[in-house]
Amino acid sequence: MRYELYYWDGIQGRGEFVRLALEDAGAAYDDIARGRGGERAIVALLDGRHAARPPFAPPFLKAGREIIGQTANILLYLGPRLRLVPSNDAGRRWVHQLQLTLADLVAEAHDTHHPVASSLYYEDQRREAKRAAKYFVAERIPKFLAYFERVLERAPGRNPWLAGARISYADLSLFQVVEGLEYAFPKATARLARRHRRVLGVRDRVRDRPRIAAYLASPRRLSFNEQGIFRRYPALDL
Amino acid sequence: MRYELYYWDGIQGRGEFVRLALEDAGAAYDDIARGRGGERAIVALLDGRHAARPPFAPPFLKAGREIIGQTANILLYLGPRLRLVPSNDAGRRWVHQLQLTLADLVAEAHDTHHPVASSLYYEDQRREAKRAAKYFVAERIPKFLAYFERVLERAPGRNPWLAGARISYADLSLFQVVEGLEYAFPKATARLARRHRRVLGVRDRVRDRPRIAAYLASPRRLSFNEQGIFRRYPALDL
Repeated sequence: MRYELYYWDGIQGRGEFVRLALEDAGAAYDDIARGRGGERAIVALLDGRHAARPPFAPPFLKAGREIIGQTANILLYLGPRLRLVPSNDAGRRWVHQLQLTLADLVAEAHDTHHPVASSLYYEDQRREAKRAAKYFVAERIPKFLAYFERVLERAPGRNPWLAGARISYADLSLFQVVEGLEYAFPKATARLARRHRRVLGVRDRVRDRPRIAAYLASPRRLSFNEQGIFRRYPALDL
Repeated sequence: MRYELYYWDGIQGRGEFVRLALEDAGAAYDDIARGRGGERAIVALLDGRHAARPPFAPPFLKAGREIIGQTANILLYLGPRLRLVPSNDAGRRWVHQLQLTLADLVAEAHDTHHPVASSLYYEDQRREAKRAAKYFVAERIPKFLAYFERVLERAPGRNPWLAGARISYADLSLFQVVEGLEYAFPKATARLARRHRRVLGVRDRVRDRPRIAAYLASPRRLSFNEQGIFRRYPALDL
């Protein structure tokens, strides 16, 4: 199966969580908006009168004739197909639960620079952003990282991955979140690194996986920038 | 199977999406924090050193020995067991996708009164809340409701439910979201009612289902209030 990924060009965004899974598995896929289709291809499917099950927003994945939306739902679908989940149902639910918790963190990270409205520029909500970021950095980053550290600590048999002995899509997403937090909040996350060695261990091991390393070095990996979810605004890194 | 639901007492919150599914199916469950266990039972499991797979936050569901967290993940688990999803995998993914879109709307509704930080009182972020609510009411409620209206419009065979001829947990959640929006933003939602007849039709039909009607009339159904997700602050209903 050759997959089609639909996501805006120019940013990693939520599409990156899907890309990392596809890349780690060596799956065949086309990144439609960055190829011939352009972003028009996304809009056509969002507004398309022919789709019986239209997605609300990108990313979405076309797999055969099925169109699957919502990042975590795409990963739920891809997990068993890319061998990025345990073989039992309870283990798969656990991975999905972790992914949804990461999605919450991602949404909160986004809202630090857009606390008023996604439709406004950051520049038009700077004051609110500064106040929101203060609490995100002081309370939310530590809470989320401590949680994932605890999950890793408790993994039976001292396994290095969130769901045990084998990597899952949640580990790939944790890599992306840690990279994003370090990009957006370099000072704040540096202070936290010591207390979250297991989380950073997941990040390091994901980065070193041969297919991920090749992907990160390729032009397919976009850089973090100030149009994405994780933005480096020094005023917010308190 | 008798389920155990763990969620804070005193508010509907995210626990309500799980309750509605259990109630509609006539499933046997204990609402632990509202019974003998109290909220201590929640804290014990969140902090518990014995849980190999600790949840990040309530709600979570205990099903046999498994503890399942994240609202949408709990519904993913319950869906087939309570017969609240289609029988094919693609249909189940579609229902889950809709649920995750509703979860996004719920998070945004919450953030209208807590745009700066969940740990602060509303009273300490009134100014930011007023500005955030203005955009939520003007842009986001219409966008989400128009999306669900479109989904219902396109359901093949003029079926009245989001996923076709039979009700799903996403319909129950859509009921809850519409009720919540009408509670929190009575003026804003009244303006929108005319254009979203199919969405309101789902709400009405859910409300009239015998088990749901009995539940809503029972003391098990808490009222909306100003500690939950959907809060009636006239200053935010623009």
